[in-house]
Amino acid sequence: MSSTFTGQHLRLSIFGQSHSEAVGMTLDGLPAGIPVDLDELQSFLNRRAPGRNDWSTPRREEDRPEFLCGLKDGFTCGAPLSAIIRNSNTRPKDYSQLKITPRPGHADYTAEVKYRGFQDYSGGGHFSGRLTAPLCIAGGIVKQALKERGIAVDARIKAIAGIVDVSPFAASVAGKEFPVADDKIGEQMREAIAKARAEGDSVGGVVECVVRGLPAGIGEPMFDGLENQIARMVFAIPAVKGIEFGAGFAAAGLRGSENNDAFCVQDGRIETVTNNAGGILGGISTGMPVVFRAAIKPTPSIAKEQQSVNLNSMEPSALRIEGRHDPCIVPRAVPVIEAAAAIAITDLILGESTWN
Amino acid sequence: MSSTFTGQHLRLSIFGQSHSEAVGMTLDGLPAGIPVDLDELQSFLNRRAPGRNDWSTPRREEDRPEFLCGLKDGFTCGAPLSAIIRNSNTRPKDYSQLKITPRPGHADYTAEVKYRGFQDYSGGGHFSGRLTAPLCIAGGIVKQALKERGIAVDARIKAIAGIVDVSPFAASVAGKEFPVADDKIGEQMREAIAKARAEGDSVGGVVECVVRGLPAGIGEPMFDGLENQIARMVFAIPAVKGIEFGAGFAAAGLRGSENNDAFCVQDGRIETVTNNAGGILGGISTGMPVVFRAAIKPTPSIAKEQQSVNLNSMEPSALRIEGRHDPCIVPRAVPVIEAAAAIAITDLILGESTWN
Amino acid sequence: MSSTFTGQHLRLSIFGQSHSEAVGMTLDGLPAGIPVDLDELQSFLNRRAPGRNDWSTPRREEDRPEFLCGLKDGFTCGAPLSAIIRNSNTRPKDYSQLKITPRPGHADYTAEVKYRGFQDYSGGGHFSGRLTAPLCIAGGIVKQALKERGIAVDARIKAIAGIVDVSPFAASVAGKEFPVADDKIGEQMREAIAKARAEGDSVGGVVECVVRGLPAGIGEPMFDGLENQIARMVFAIPAVKGIEFGAGFAAAGLRGSENNDAFCVQDGRIETVTNNAGGILGGISTGMPVVFRAAIKPTPSIAKEQQSVNLNSMEPSALRIEGRHDPCIVPRAVPVIEAAAAIAITDLILGESTWN
Amino acid sequence: MSSTFTGQHLRLSIFGQSHSEAVGMTLDGLPAGIPVDLDELQSFLNRRAPGRNDWSTPRREEDRPEFLCGLKDGFTCGAPLSAIIRNSNTRPKDYSQLKITPRPGHADYTAEVKYRGFQDYSGGGHFSGRLTAPLCIAGGIVKQALKERGIAVDARIKAIAGIVDVSPFAASVAGKEFPVADDKIGEQMREAIAKARAEGDSVGGVVECVVRGLPAGIGEPMFDGLENQIARMVFAIPAVKGIEFGAGFAAAGLRGSENNDAFCVQDGRIETVTNNAGGILGGISTGMPVVFRAAIKPTPSIAKEQQSVNLNSMEPSALRIEGRHDPCIVPRAVPVIEAAAAIAITDLILGESTWN
Repeated sequence: MSSTFTGQHLRLSIFGQSHSEAVGMTLDGLPAGIPVDLDELQSFLNRRAPGRNDWSTPRREEDRPEFLCGLKDGFTCGAPLSAIIRNSNTRPKDYSQLKITPRPGHADYTAEVKYRGFQDYSGGGHFSGRLTAPLCIAGGIVKQALKERGIAVDARIKAIAGIVDVSPFAASVAGKEFPVADDKIGEQMREAIAKARAEGDSVGGVVECVVRGLPAGIGEPMFDGLENQIARMVFAIPAVKGIEFGAGFAAAGLRGSENNDAFCVQDGRIETVTNNAGGILGGISTGMPVVFRAAIKPTPSIAKEQQSVNLNSMEPSALRIEGRHDPCIVPRAVPVIEAAAAIAITDLILGESTWN
Repeated sequence: MSSTFTGQHLRLSIFGQSHSEAVGMTLDGLPAGIPVDLDELQSFLNRRAPGRNDWSTPRREEDRPEFLCGLKDGFTCGAPLSAIIRNSNTRPKDYSQLKITPRPGHADYTAEVKYRGFQDYSGGGHFSGRLTAPLCIAGGIVKQALKERGIAVDARIKAIAGIVDVSPFAASVAGKEFPVADDKIGEQMREAIAKARAEGDSVGGVVECVVRGLPAGIGEPMFDGLENQIARMVFAIPAVKGIEFGAGFAAAGLRGSENNDAFCVQDGRIETVTNNAGGILGGISTGMPVVFRAAIKPTPSIAKEQQSVNLNSMEPSALRIEGRHDPCIVPRAVPVIEAAAAIAITDLILGESTWN
Repeated sequence: MSSTFTGQHLRLSIFGQSHSEAVGMTLDGLPAGIPVDLDELQSFLNRRAPGRNDWSTPRREEDRPEFLCGLKDGFTCGAPLSAIIRNSNTRPKDYSQLKITPRPGHADYTAEVKYRGFQDYSGGGHFSGRLTAPLCIAGGIVKQALKERGIAVDARIKAIAGIVDVSPFAASVAGKEFPVADDKIGEQMREAIAKARAEGDSVGGVVECVVRGLPAGIGEPMFDGLENQIARMVFAIPAVKGIEFGAGFAAAGLRGSENNDAFCVQDGRIETVTNNAGGILGGISTGMPVVFRAAIKPTPSIAKEQQSVNLNSMEPSALRIEGRHDPCIVPRAVPVIEAAAAIAITDLILGESTWN
Repeated sequence: MSSTFTGQHLRLSIFGQSHSEAVGMTLDGLPAGIPVDLDELQSFLNRRAPGRNDWSTPRREEDRPEFLCGLKDGFTCGAPLSAIIRNSNTRPKDYSQLKITPRPGHADYTAEVKYRGFQDYSGGGHFSGRLTAPLCIAGGIVKQALKERGIAVDARIKAIAGIVDVSPFAASVAGKEFPVADDKIGEQMREAIAKARAEGDSVGGVVECVVRGLPAGIGEPMFDGLENQIARMVFAIPAVKGIEFGAGFAAAGLRGSENNDAFCVQDGRIETVTNNAGGILGGISTGMPVVFRAAIKPTPSIAKEQQSVNLNSMEPSALRIEGRHDPCIVPRAVPVIEAAAAIAITDLILGESTWN
């Protein structure tokens, strides 16, 4: 109820708080016999890990997962797969004031109401972006499984601080520390981040994700279609405030004759001439690339003074946040979005029945 | 698995095809003792029903639900609530060609792949917008239950064909046949619809929904927050291709200092000065209005000739759709969006534990 | 939450009250293309239907399901399958006193507490055995699907009123109106039923069920094994108070060397010499027949005077139940147990992933 | 899908293999603010822990849980609660032969089929009784929570090796190392265990559990009643092959007039004179003690030679199991049954809606 994803076939349990002993995940329902390359997984996790460059928080975590169970000789063994990451570099003292003076844009206040004062407020507790690390363990593993089946999940920075990269999606960002297709645009984005940081502020952006190689026919009607499932998973990432598929919000301004994707035959298989549907019709994959974009709000933790309320006195209270924070989490969100999409899609594939 | 919503507390099963005997729904998990006003429900359903004005399909359905069980003397009795609507005015012959020549923008092709030719293609089968009628039965009932608790769920047309209504949300659209706040803008929208219809085309738009009166503390972290649940429910509506909460995609272009909503005290309770978060932090309600917008693509069924493929011969095939269709479904989608939001929110409220 | 079964792959929603407009079911998740023989289904339902012989209630219901959706040309079409049975022969007046004087052995009192007076008490409401009719619609359909795959689900009367049939399971009861293997024993059972009826009383019994042809490897560890799932489904049948698999409670008195089933090779495949495990090890099928028994309590509705309490006055109140009731529901429970087992097993088969 | 319990409100994920790094559990959905006494929890776990007396396996594990998250200052904080137990005293070499020669009565063979050779066969892998340790962590915590609300969950040995203790349930077994009410009968049971052990064999038994203090009205109709939920949870315990509630299988031999529990007024509240229903009518608690019994098969791992099959050669193969095993697991199963019942009941209580 909350941090356990109950999918069509997978059960994913995410646990931990920003400053608890560990964060971790249990992934239940993966078939036995899937090979897991731990080095490749580590590379994937490093794309998200903090403290590695000038646009992320100086809190440096190695983010090395310790596997507790579920793997045998490099393959999944059918039992639940569980892995944890120790929270080594915590500084709980930074957060002591936040219980009574909630940070704007954070879950401090809503957690206080919901958990009636018993919540772990330190570092954002269970609402911290740190919880995306275990999400990436699960996502990194299923990404490998998908890759084996010819399905590639790739995301990139689409926009930061209003600066948009209009490169066609095919443009690769593989291996780039700053995963944007057009490096010149990327340079402008990094300048915008640096400027915000210098001013004690932060910026947001948009991540675009594409899934290639997904066969037609995956997804369920109504509540468990590709859009429902991907959205449900992507909104688990703190800071995501919107999602759109294919032409998305722009489709709302098109005519039907413009937005409909005409069918055609390409190399003996059915394709569509355009892909405004983002590879999804009726919640089910068309065989074209699945394309979606997620809006990431600017990091709420900023150095600038903000207005809050002292919950004890109910008096206005100015707040200056001391801890270590990312001026822009969009680059680090890129692999997290990939992880979320990979989990949602793997779940729907696994949910297909063997009956026929 | 697909058309059954398994929420925190509610189970909603939607069934039927466009031209089957009936469409219907079963809502399981409503507490006993909730009063249901059937006249008010009928008024709500009439807002969605087709055939009543010049921007909707001429297929006129009365959409009078027949309650099979779950009500006693005007109150829910604790047992599952089931209601059906007979499909009286069907014309299956209109659709005979579509099995082999899928309509662009529809689920004809993906259903063909998924169900291997066994699907009910007539009228779009289970993928028809007709399935939003039972969604509105469920939604109309829980809207009444929410209203009793002081929670109001209201949607309106935000944009059609690129024409945007910038009225503040407080502006009421209650009782309007064309639910837009600014009637002058509404006039332009209706002209755009009429023009599209005259050209055998269609237009899309954006629906905005606001939920007022929801107390702080509702929603779960990670996978079952307000955003996840509302998104999961809203993407069950055919034609929705995007959703955003609060400032949404626009937040991606703001600074943290602009986007963060400062806390303040108003009438002795905590509020926020702005509401860019759309009433949601960490997936949990802040007590401010929950605000979201859904992008509705233009109706895919258009009279204009389109390019498709004959699935038997795998040859290109021009397609002219004959049936009866809405040139713009946005006005009729307004109550459906309300229904979806009301169900998602009721489920999260009911999912709160009595323990404490 | 309650009357919706959320399985590994299937979602089964059962709705209705004893005297509501209709009872019915929606089965969501069946693959498209499964043939459904409606005559065979009717024959299956007739085995449960009341009013056909001297050991069942005189309330005669035709129990003819009306299919609302989900079938096309005799095959499942992939959309949810929904069917209802009208409650034609209801006599609500029989039950008016029961709201304030709960019947011993019935759910009248617990429903009154749970639903705070809003429950539909007429005829037992949602707790009536009548709700097993829609369970049999779902079960009858999946039984056909299993049969197509070579899996047979057969139950029989094992005991009534303490009279036990020790025939080996292989003995067929197919087509018998009184489904017991040894007809002489059956005669004694019927006499015991007739005697109880004459005395205004009722008797219980045990139903045994065997599933043949289930391949090895079906079922999940821990919470979703064959035993968990079958038990969860079987306890949905009113009056079931116990279940045991294979040697069951008798196994508790055996030595390990007696109870363990030695492995052997038979016709080139692995079998076990005995089947004390009832075809299940670790929750997973062994390939041997799955065998279980369910204990059915005597019908609680009896003509004899019983002691109850007037809930208004909180005074003792003698109760004589007037309605029409079965002196023994065990014969009619036989197909219901088959239905429950068939649904549980189909769900686990469908839940197997296609990944490998 | 399998080792994740998805209840009405709780999500319980159990992970680990007999010889993996650790076994553990994540319990998601507990309200914030529940006090957890770790010493009391340790005492509870010690009742299950092996290696402490002459009727359990010499494999001595300390079974000290390490809490990773979810607790703050001795209270639940609302976030998922996760704890692990390291597998310190493993001897994987003992099991090397079992992959190709499955042990009778164990899941070796079914796991081999299901996981196609990728399973972790060492020590029974994920099917080991060791997995009941994390079940007891979850159960021990919710037992404390229930106790705070006046609900007591107590189990005891009802029978071992056919020797039955007929003491009334009220007789206390609290604090006894061998939890049987009648110590003389207990002596006989221990002799039977010792005899079986001396002969390289094992014995089974029956555990009885009673839940006192549960208010009337808890549980849901049909698929999620108390019987369904408790059964589903109890069958997660390896070796359980049957369950019965109240009079259970004996009820099948009674008349309705004998089995029905007459209602009466006691101290101003409704009770029943007898409790053949085991405190449950229509799946819902009556307010009387909930009573059930579980049949535990004799430990399948015995020293005696047994017949199996070499899966490589498909030839018969005699098997002698070398490892360390319990001649009778019934005493250690007593707290595990309590844990299972406590989890099922807590889940149903938490699942009650706050609406009314």
